Amino acid sequence: LSTFRLEIEYDGTGFRGWATQPGMRTVQGELEAALATIMGERVPLTVAGRTDAGVHAWGQVASFRTEAEPPRGLALRLNALGPDDLAVLRADPAPEDFDARRDARSRTYCYRVLRRRSPSPFEQGRALWWPHRLDLAAIEACAASLHGTHDFTAFTPARNEHVRFRRDVLRAGWVEESDAVVSLWIEADAFMHNMVRILVGTMLEAGSGRRSVAEFAALLEGRPREDAGETAPAHGLYLASVAY
Amino acid sequence: LSTFRLEIEYDGTGFRGWATQPGMRTVQGELEAALATIMGERVPLTVAGRTDAGVHAWGQVASFRTEAEPPRGLALRLNALGPDDLAVLRADPAPEDFDARRDARSRTYCYRVLRRRSPSPFEQGRALWWPHRLDLAAIEACAASLHGTHDFTAFTPARNEHVRFRRDVLRAGWVEESDAVVSLWIEADAFMHNMVRILVGTMLEAGSGRRSVAEFAALLEGRPREDAGETAPAHGLYLASVAY
Repeated sequence: LSTFRLEIEYDGTGFRGWATQPGMRTVQGELEAALATIMGERVPLTVAGRTDAGVHAWGQVASFRTEAEPPRGLALRLNALGPDDLAVLRADPAPEDFDARRDARSRTYCYRVLRRRSPSPFEQGRALWWPHRLDLAAIEACAASLHGTHDFTAFTPARNEHVRFRRDVLRAGWVEESDAVVSLWIEADAFMHNMVRILVGTMLEAGSGRRSVAEFAALLEGRPREDAGETAPAHGLYLASVAY
Repeated sequence: LSTFRLEIEYDGTGFRGWATQPGMRTVQGELEAALATIMGERVPLTVAGRTDAGVHAWGQVASFRTEAEPPRGLALRLNALGPDDLAVLRADPAPEDFDARRDARSRTYCYRVLRRRSPSPFEQGRALWWPHRLDLAAIEACAASLHGTHDFTAFTPARNEHVRFRRDVLRAGWVEESDAVVSLWIEADAFMHNMVRILVGTMLEAGSGRRSVAEFAALLEGRPREDAGETAPAHGLYLASVAY
């Protein structure tokens, strides 16, 4: 039995998210189809972060186990066979019991915001266009309040599949990527569904003066979903990396 | 009579270049159609740099003259009316005799090269994918040899419409934009057709050891087109800015 670890980049625009769904184009579906062609057998993938429709990834990690002969040049072959909006950055042998989901110690997400008056042909579908007021000091203060362990009930849909709502945030801060783009980088042990998008939507309310930083911070004590802000759109979000 | 100056950004992927061509989708065609709707009359645009099919722009400049009332919020209205792969960054009143082409003192182009083994979903159509050897010192030495006035006959198609072949290069150098992307920035009084793309194609030959820097520099003395290298693809090229 041999185990492989894949590192994957994708532009989420054309995918209905990571997970296979009948009749839908998904990242898992495309990758497993290419793998089946190369390996001659169906190989189910385990993934570190299941991303939603429209969410991108720079450093998604997936693993699979096979009894077949370990294929050579697997990344090259997957890229030759797979679609252009998906790239396998690495495909490496891993310890036999490696599991991309269970063994992940933390995930890092990035949310990109384009601050300028005019829309951008190049950032379309890749950053949230925000032509409104944005107080960087306020959103940075919100991000600083995230450090440590909190109850993120306010930051996941009211109907959800989670059993515990505490998450451990290791790092959170806004970075000025360029004149026009600012991005939130956030690392945590794990994330709940929509967590980064609701955090960003709520921070943007603080950044435009509709909510105070103290009100934002108070949400981290297990408040209900309706106390937080809107869910920011999927297309600004990137799964940046996974640590093991 | 009033004159306007537009600053324009576009993703060239979906356009058959700048200039209007019957039956083709072009940047000029889309912009003039939107302008006609807003102004109620046909308004021909003059442009600083006519770009080819697939070439992008971050800072294209165009001008037009009108006898109509100067419209308010012109940039906003053009962006609302125009397609998503084209944005008007500014639309400002200009001196009555301003002409975007004639008055341009220099143009700056950027050519982006992605150096990594795997292709990139995000740089697809936006940078040349170069998974081969690339000696940065060699291509930087080529760029340094461009400074000053040279005869660029080798760097334009043998059949061309140009009458003089000397151009004055004010700045040329490669920049490491990120771990994976290097880009050539080049500013000159004016450029000949395909000039940057043939320069890059020839530099890449020097960068992969198929041509020496001295051989590259010797081409700047008016050698024929066949002595230079291949024309690099359009999709790595950006008209970055125009100086007046």
